Amino acid sequence: MDLTQVLHMNGGVGEESYANNSVLQRKVISLTKPLRDEAITNLYRNSLPKSLAIADLGCSCGPNTFLVISETMKVVEKLCQEMNHKSPEYKIFLNDLPGNDFNTIFQSLDTFKENLRNEIKTEMDHCYIFGAPGSFYSRLFPDKSMHFVHSSYSLQFLSKVPNGVENNKGNIYLSSTSPSNVIKAYYEQYKIDFSHFLKCRAQELVEGGRLFVTLIGRQSEEPWSKDCCYIWELMATDLNDMVSKGIIKEEKFNSFNVPVYYPYPSEVKSEILNEGSFDMDQLDVSQVNFYELDNGFDTAQCTRAIAEPLLVSHFGESVTKELFNRFQKNVSDHMPKEQAKITNITMVLTRKP
Amino acid sequence: MDLTQVLHMNGGVGEESYANNSVLQRKVISLTKPLRDEAITNLYRNSLPKSLAIADLGCSCGPNTFLVISETMKVVEKLCQEMNHKSPEYKIFLNDLPGNDFNTIFQSLDTFKENLRNEIKTEMDHCYIFGAPGSFYSRLFPDKSMHFVHSSYSLQFLSKVPNGVENNKGNIYLSSTSPSNVIKAYYEQYKIDFSHFLKCRAQELVEGGRLFVTLIGRQSEEPWSKDCCYIWELMATDLNDMVSKGIIKEEKFNSFNVPVYYPYPSEVKSEILNEGSFDMDQLDVSQVNFYELDNGFDTAQCTRAIAEPLLVSHFGESVTKELFNRFQKNVSDHMPKEQAKITNITMVLTRKP
Repeated sequence: MDLTQVLHMNGGVGEESYANNSVLQRKVISLTKPLRDEAITNLYRNSLPKSLAIADLGCSCGPNTFLVISETMKVVEKLCQEMNHKSPEYKIFLNDLPGNDFNTIFQSLDTFKENLRNEIKTEMDHCYIFGAPGSFYSRLFPDKSMHFVHSSYSLQFLSKVPNGVENNKGNIYLSSTSPSNVIKAYYEQYKIDFSHFLKCRAQELVEGGRLFVTLIGRQSEEPWSKDCCYIWELMATDLNDMVSKGIIKEEKFNSFNVPVYYPYPSEVKSEILNEGSFDMDQLDVSQVNFYELDNGFDTAQCTRAIAEPLLVSHFGESVTKELFNRFQKNVSDHMPKEQAKITNITMVLTRKP
Repeated sequence: MDLTQVLHMNGGVGEESYANNSVLQRKVISLTKPLRDEAITNLYRNSLPKSLAIADLGCSCGPNTFLVISETMKVVEKLCQEMNHKSPEYKIFLNDLPGNDFNTIFQSLDTFKENLRNEIKTEMDHCYIFGAPGSFYSRLFPDKSMHFVHSSYSLQFLSKVPNGVENNKGNIYLSSTSPSNVIKAYYEQYKIDFSHFLKCRAQELVEGGRLFVTLIGRQSEEPWSKDCCYIWELMATDLNDMVSKGIIKEEKFNSFNVPVYYPYPSEVKSEILNEGSFDMDQLDVSQVNFYELDNGFDTAQCTRAIAEPLLVSHFGESVTKELFNRFQKNVSDHMPKEQAKITNITMVLTRKP
């Protein structure tokens, strides 16, 4: 079994920072560092911009918020020292949904700058940091204004629950019992969203600019595979129980589905090719052993972090509270038996001329 | 008597939005509209930028936050219609201290855009809004990146309490009993801060870019005049009472001073000339009758909004609470007798080539 599905929800939703700032997210940022360092090095050496614009999409709020930004700046500063080249002016844009806790991020800017200054031993007089609230499924930045756009563990979220999934009875995401029209609807929504995401970023990036994305995908070709659907099946079991006990109405349960999709690497690849604005420098698939990082409690908490706002708005607070009591037990009972792995898909794309 | 001193504190401090979003601030934004419209019209007609960068410094959080931005955009859209010219791409930067409630601002962006779309009847596909946390007494934006920088009711704040005012006994701001070194120290701090503010903005503005600032000043040549110091004298009276009752230690009282300065128009003018980066298109002095807008309760609340964080960090919470109980009564007893006027200084500056 693969716990992909637990952490997929890491980041991007804004209301809750637990997931995106999990130990897993930190592990993945560390795993993808060599690829990221290579991408920023190539970008900087080839263009040597006086003013370097970097964006992090789905930055969330927590200990990992500044991690990629500071690593990226350290790489550039090191390059400048090696090349005996003047440091660029940095323009850093932190993006998440408007519900993200930007106040807390902004209040930690001084500490971030102070720490970075101590590490890179330069004055950082010219580092401007901005909040850029909004959905990354829309335009966020001016035309051709970005050099390096990064996103980690956010792109598995869809912009919305797909239309036409009303007959996904007894499920809240894809499962082996999902009708084929539901499976198709999820895949279609993924294609629309990812392709639109690429189009927006293509407009925002300068020629030769890099888009670096890590998302949670799946290792099995079937989108309804347990490999990526198990945690939502566990939650659906709890919801089914609550329907049979009369706590939730059946229609209410049947009209609830989660807006995520875990793509197969070839699905990612074909959208990049179809959209056409980017050269694909890398498409890397890696796996993380979930049991190294987490436990049943964290699993339930991570899922809660992402699913709670959706559940509360659909079922109300008290039902959601009861659901999570059941779910936490269910996760503790079932998860430890499984050898959980998370499938990460990392892509490095260069904006074509 | 002039209530300048009450509302000077409007805005800029971030923690508290009451003051900057007061009825007075709205009145002043309305009073300065003709000058502002003229400034943005001249700027736009002369340069016709494809991408127009606008910043509001000390935007605070409340009903007035988007007022100047939306008025400015409406002027530009009207010009575009008259000239049959394509709308520019807008880059809007909202600045305040990191303690400002940016979360609330960001959550109202959709409503702001929706309202503006309805009013100007254009699609506004290309309006990007960013949060820019930081002190305007430091660099906030990249070199030559801004076209129009606005600030209303924030520049009367100093970057800090001046050094060397330890002997300002019995006062918390300038008064007729302030020693001459204290008066000099306040004026020197004003000159350092305002000149540094101009230098930072000069680096950020493009050639021909406009800086539009309204601040609260004074009408009397003497900086210790009651015209601009009365409200702080009232508060000092209350603090003196609390010292004599043993609630506050005298040393504690004597080491408290507020970081504001209400300049005389010629003081503003000479700093602009000395700094040298700007042509002074306008320096306009206007007055608002305070009693039209406010009452004793609001006066006390406005003062509280600005002074409370300073007082709490110096005297602690319970002393501050007691102080405001006394102060509110004091204000109600003394203010209604006075014919309060607020002196506004509005300057329109153009970045020299």
